[in-house]
Amino acid sequence: MEATDATETRRELDKKCVTEGSYHVTEASSQTDPKVQGHGPRLSKVNLYTLLSLWMELFPQKKAVFSNENEVTRRTGLVVVHERRILGLHCSSAELHAGQVAVVKHGPRLTRCDLYFSRKPCSTCLKMIINAGVSRISYWPGDPEISLLASDEASSSADSRLEAELDAAAAEKLKSSSRPYMGVLLQPLAFDMQQYVEETSASCDFQEKMATDLPVVDVGDLFRQQLWQNRDELSRVFLVVDETRHRGLLTKMGLVTFCAEPYFSNLRQHMRDLVRLLASVASSVPRVEDAGYGFYLKGGSSTITSPNVPQDVIRHCIVQAKLLAYRTEDPKVGVGAVIWAEGQLGLCDGTGRLHLVGCGYNAYPVGSEYGEYPQMDDKQGDRQSRKYRYIIHAEQNAITFRSVEIKEEQGTMLFVTKCPCDECVPMIRAAGIRQVYTTDLDSGKKKNDISYLRFDGLQGVQKFIWQRRPQTKSVCEKQSPFTVANGCMKHLRQESSEPLPSKRLCS
Amino acid sequence: MEATDATETRRELDKKCVTEGSYHVTEASSQTDPKVQGHGPRLSKVNLYTLLSLWMELFPQKKAVFSNENEVTRRTGLVVVHERRILGLHCSSAELHAGQVAVVKHGPRLTRCDLYFSRKPCSTCLKMIINAGVSRISYWPGDPEISLLASDEASSSADSRLEAELDAAAAEKLKSSSRPYMGVLLQPLAFDMQQYVEETSASCDFQEKMATDLPVVDVGDLFRQQLWQNRDELSRVFLVVDETRHRGLLTKMGLVTFCAEPYFSNLRQHMRDLVRLLASVASSVPRVEDAGYGFYLKGGSSTITSPNVPQDVIRHCIVQAKLLAYRTEDPKVGVGAVIWAEGQLGLCDGTGRLHLVGCGYNAYPVGSEYGEYPQMDDKQGDRQSRKYRYIIHAEQNAITFRSVEIKEEQGTMLFVTKCPCDECVPMIRAAGIRQVYTTDLDSGKKKNDISYLRFDGLQGVQKFIWQRRPQTKSVCEKQSPFTVANGCMKHLRQESSEPLPSKRLCS
Amino acid sequence: MEATDATETRRELDKKCVTEGSYHVTEASSQTDPKVQGHGPRLSKVNLYTLLSLWMELFPQKKAVFSNENEVTRRTGLVVVHERRILGLHCSSAELHAGQVAVVKHGPRLTRCDLYFSRKPCSTCLKMIINAGVSRISYWPGDPEISLLASDEASSSADSRLEAELDAAAAEKLKSSSRPYMGVLLQPLAFDMQQYVEETSASCDFQEKMATDLPVVDVGDLFRQQLWQNRDELSRVFLVVDETRHRGLLTKMGLVTFCAEPYFSNLRQHMRDLVRLLASVASSVPRVEDAGYGFYLKGGSSTITSPNVPQDVIRHCIVQAKLLAYRTEDPKVGVGAVIWAEGQLGLCDGTGRLHLVGCGYNAYPVGSEYGEYPQMDDKQGDRQSRKYRYIIHAEQNAITFRSVEIKEEQGTMLFVTKCPCDECVPMIRAAGIRQVYTTDLDSGKKKNDISYLRFDGLQGVQKFIWQRRPQTKSVCEKQSPFTVANGCMKHLRQESSEPLPSKRLCS
Repeated sequence: MEATDATETRRELDKKCVTEGSYHVTEASSQTDPKVQGHGPRLSKVNLYTLLSLWMELFPQKKAVFSNENEVTRRTGLVVVHERRILGLHCSSAELHAGQVAVVKHGPRLTRCDLYFSRKPCSTCLKMIINAGVSRISYWPGDPEISLLASDEASSSADSRLEAELDAAAAEKLKSSSRPYMGVLLQPLAFDMQQYVEETSASCDFQEKMATDLPVVDVGDLFRQQLWQNRDELSRVFLVVDETRHRGLLTKMGLVTFCAEPYFSNLRQHMRDLVRLLASVASSVPRVEDAGYGFYLKGGSSTITSPNVPQDVIRHCIVQAKLLAYRTEDPKVGVGAVIWAEGQLGLCDGTGRLHLVGCGYNAYPVGSEYGEYPQMDDKQGDRQSRKYRYIIHAEQNAITFRSVEIKEEQGTMLFVTKCPCDECVPMIRAAGIRQVYTTDLDSGKKKNDISYLRFDGLQGVQKFIWQRRPQTKSVCEKQSPFTVANGCMKHLRQESSEPLPSKRLCS
Repeated sequence: MEATDATETRRELDKKCVTEGSYHVTEASSQTDPKVQGHGPRLSKVNLYTLLSLWMELFPQKKAVFSNENEVTRRTGLVVVHERRILGLHCSSAELHAGQVAVVKHGPRLTRCDLYFSRKPCSTCLKMIINAGVSRISYWPGDPEISLLASDEASSSADSRLEAELDAAAAEKLKSSSRPYMGVLLQPLAFDMQQYVEETSASCDFQEKMATDLPVVDVGDLFRQQLWQNRDELSRVFLVVDETRHRGLLTKMGLVTFCAEPYFSNLRQHMRDLVRLLASVASSVPRVEDAGYGFYLKGGSSTITSPNVPQDVIRHCIVQAKLLAYRTEDPKVGVGAVIWAEGQLGLCDGTGRLHLVGCGYNAYPVGSEYGEYPQMDDKQGDRQSRKYRYIIHAEQNAITFRSVEIKEEQGTMLFVTKCPCDECVPMIRAAGIRQVYTTDLDSGKKKNDISYLRFDGLQGVQKFIWQRRPQTKSVCEKQSPFTVANGCMKHLRQESSEPLPSKRLCS
Repeated sequence: MEATDATETRRELDKKCVTEGSYHVTEASSQTDPKVQGHGPRLSKVNLYTLLSLWMELFPQKKAVFSNENEVTRRTGLVVVHERRILGLHCSSAELHAGQVAVVKHGPRLTRCDLYFSRKPCSTCLKMIINAGVSRISYWPGDPEISLLASDEASSSADSRLEAELDAAAAEKLKSSSRPYMGVLLQPLAFDMQQYVEETSASCDFQEKMATDLPVVDVGDLFRQQLWQNRDELSRVFLVVDETRHRGLLTKMGLVTFCAEPYFSNLRQHMRDLVRLLASVASSVPRVEDAGYGFYLKGGSSTITSPNVPQDVIRHCIVQAKLLAYRTEDPKVGVGAVIWAEGQLGLCDGTGRLHLVGCGYNAYPVGSEYGEYPQMDDKQGDRQSRKYRYIIHAEQNAITFRSVEIKEEQGTMLFVTKCPCDECVPMIRAAGIRQVYTTDLDSGKKKNDISYLRFDGLQGVQKFIWQRRPQTKSVCEKQSPFTVANGCMKHLRQESSEPLPSKRLCS
């Protein structure tokens, strides 16, 4: 059913949402402004890793994965964590499953790692990662990598059904005979998390930048359209609408305990909540390439404005950073940073030649207790009580806890959700980062305790800024009249007959 | 005496063999077929490392080692082990002893390593490896690196005798004052190991391939000839024929406890057994270069068929893999794999620019208990009881537990004793391996639970297959009539007047 | 005051020296010859690291550091130690503080490291290194990185004073809230250490080489001049002459306990002793570039005699090795070795593209107890009681305990205080070292148990020897008559009217 009827899925979900009284997009008013409230809710580690694994499953790929060869195999996302560091963000490639990718990429470094999969991995991957000595294997309790839903279809062959069942049985055998913990790690969100994420996503620097640039466009409306689209897509991929089928699937996967109430409803609610949250974060950086919006070289001429990484990959990485930002310890502003590099061997990973170098969010020094350090900002209290001298910035954490060394010959890229400040700029350059993808909303500003004066002058590092594509008139004319939604609502073409803002981006 | 009279040695050994009632080549009938029996005997870890150290001493080298400079210094092989991983396979070079090679190559990584030497290392090497913090130093109880046998000769100078004795004394002083365990680690073989190894060596894929290609040649006979030759050579290098001299040597090396009976006889028996076993394994890949047999590019034209590594080095590496295969946990078929790469700095090791990347054999996941997983194959039991979904292949273990990273610019080579299956082929490519040396006996076959269909289509990796050299007619004519044995019996030229098979390879 | 009145400082110090009855240069006679005495005193680890951190602050740099931008920030030296290994020797660069350099260079490797700073680091550096998980932060109790002395000046702005005080307060907050030990680690020197270092510095190979080459020059006199100059300079940089100001500074830095007697006097005495010792060691390799003395290619023609590292950097590295030599375990001759390489990324460190590979001194194997091994040399006892077979040479320790791998493409350099012996020469080459900086005083000599015959023949490694610059007549004429002191006494130009040796180097 998965790939057939998006509209139906959406209606289903809407109904459920109403039934269960959960939040609805149109309700996302600004009743509570987290910027006034102070401390926003945080993601737990486990939920962060889970969300990142789901998101990695959607890493943009040129080649279709497993499309012809074996229809029952699903693409899978994977997060590899060692102690407090994320060592790798992976996804299945045309040739290898995510678990195999981890074995090839990390080898002996997998020892004592925790692995978070967006699907229960197949038994071949399981045997290899168990063999490598991992500590923990967590997976999303939806359709597994060797799809039980697909093999369940009437159209599927007896062979593939048998294969899926033998695989599930072998996975259970491996689980019972091996040392690593293996199971489902999902945690309920903080009660106000959903709303907080939606509001901060709708008002983040990327949205603000567009609102500033294009005062005639209703950016909030654009955000809501993207949000609907993302919810549809993500639900289709990660949720199992039919309860009976979900129960059957959990049973085959050895998760019988989850099939009884109230655990079953709780599980499904958590899954829905996380998918919805991911949709909100993904909407914070809208897909509006067709409208000429994206990451382009700051002050660049038209010839060299484009980065050598596609816009959809940049967007994916920025959303990774956005997710990380929701684990901030900063009382007010969460910032996330991810560093990727173009490596040598690009044959194996679903991310191609790109590999993760490090990632981080802003926080007090590792090991500090809650409330131990000053927390006020420059609008409150005296200078001795302010947070600025104590918070480690996202970029600093990404560099400090990097999982591989940065090499000169690899074009290392930093993706960060806010403009780097003067404390970080020289470190970014010294660390050997060659490209920064960010917004420059704060660039050139100087506040009392933090300033952003050095970013513009940063030499030897290319700065790709979220902005409209610097373009010649002719290009603009060629694209001529189109609506904001054109670029980002391909899947909902029927619904684009709804009243849409007629404001033109090129006007 | 060592280098003077091979024939005498051989007679000696024959006599002993008879006296002690141990197995003889010609007795190696197929009374017990291990393929029917089920579980074959396994090598212990300690014996595997010891055998690999002996074999490494014989790594083919262009330059003679220590030939002019210092006659009393013997070439030495070395295996460096950390936890369950082999970090390095080394041997003395023209400039450095094996222990120094290990210090230069591994430096701080030697901490807590176990070192297995093919000879007791000299005191200079000992002080450095003790200083590096190794845990264990094991050595073969034959003539040490600073040869006590050579210095014992009448022809040797008083200086070199004094030097050898001062060195031996210093080594004992270092042993008594330092933390690492230092001594002789040899274990008796399983009672049927010798026969099992001989039979499986005689019937392995390399032998079968020749038998298939050359039905007119008696491959079994060829194997036996190689076996005799190898036994002679290895005994000459690693055993001390004369009991009195061996006792004297053990005494000087501080191994007095081994000089009393029955320990002395036991020690000598274990040494003979291991040398004999090594000879059997070495014979499984015959030296028949002159007969045009070797590892050549699969489907290659005559111009680019030759690998850039010499045939004798390839053969050495394949025999390393064969040794590893005898530690398999697979109930029936042992497979071994070794990965070597061409590094940057090739000044120091006896292996030149080649350095070990990793090695492995097929086994159940690390940490599993005996008999915990299904063990049947596709001829027995139902599919749920079969081993295939649980066994980690030799190539997978070599990649997973690699000791260094594979780099694009280094031509990384995999040596594996059986054709890689469809599960391994994409991982081999993704890992960055550029050349595979193997047999293709199974290539193209598909069994119920395991298939070999993808190896032939493997792109971007050169496949060097054990086969006859693809050659033009003229080359064949130039080599003109010769016997199978010509190429491999240089050392036994007198004996080649024995009745030999007159079947010509070129006929 | 620091940079204004060197002469006054010197007088101050002289007076103190007399008052406190401590050693004076002109008293440095050879009453006790440590070469006859046997065991010399050793530096403690903590003092060694502290001295290295002070010395690193003085690493020669082209660009002035922090000169315009922020006058209150002082350059700082830093030594990063993990277990018994020095991982890094750093100093502030034009863009980054030393602590930031360590974060960028080492990242996650900083976990459980000990850091020795030549000044108390600023709060920004502190938060980052605490965050990185270091174990210990030790700093020299002089003026901190954000100078309290400078901000104390009448000329300094209210802003910079406030900044310095907020920074000091934040540093104390970080100290009280974080896990790593943070404080002052200084230890009293052994009672005869000062004299021992002065005498061995005055008679080391570098001095002897000059004495041999230039019999007409009074090398001892040259040494004493350098010593005076170095004492002046180092005292100006590292000591706080005025007691009241020092007390005020310690109080602001949270070191109130050091302000009471007798702790205050003791602290100042230890600081003076260490600065004086550093001055002695620094004088062992005199700055006489103008006199045509330096490190030049052995046997090189005039065209390629110069290394690509400036002479002042070479001298700095040799002095690092000299400091290490004072932790020798050898009963008579201390040797130190430092390996540096030219890395890829040279943007961040005050050492430019150079980074430390490893360092060591000669010692018995790690883990051995005092007096466990023979200690005599070739002038005493029989050959079995001699030290030679047990001592690990400085070069061997530097290679064994290296902190990064040596790469072919990086021109790796070894700086060693004595000519490498025949045991080390092949290891140096095999390790991939491309350049050696040393003296060749022993080269070509053969003693009973140790020989230096292979150094001259060492191929593939450039040997830069402490010697007079091989020069053409014309160059010599151009430089025309000058005195020895010209090159090295720029700061004491007034005093160069003192009676100086009129012997000309070019005569």
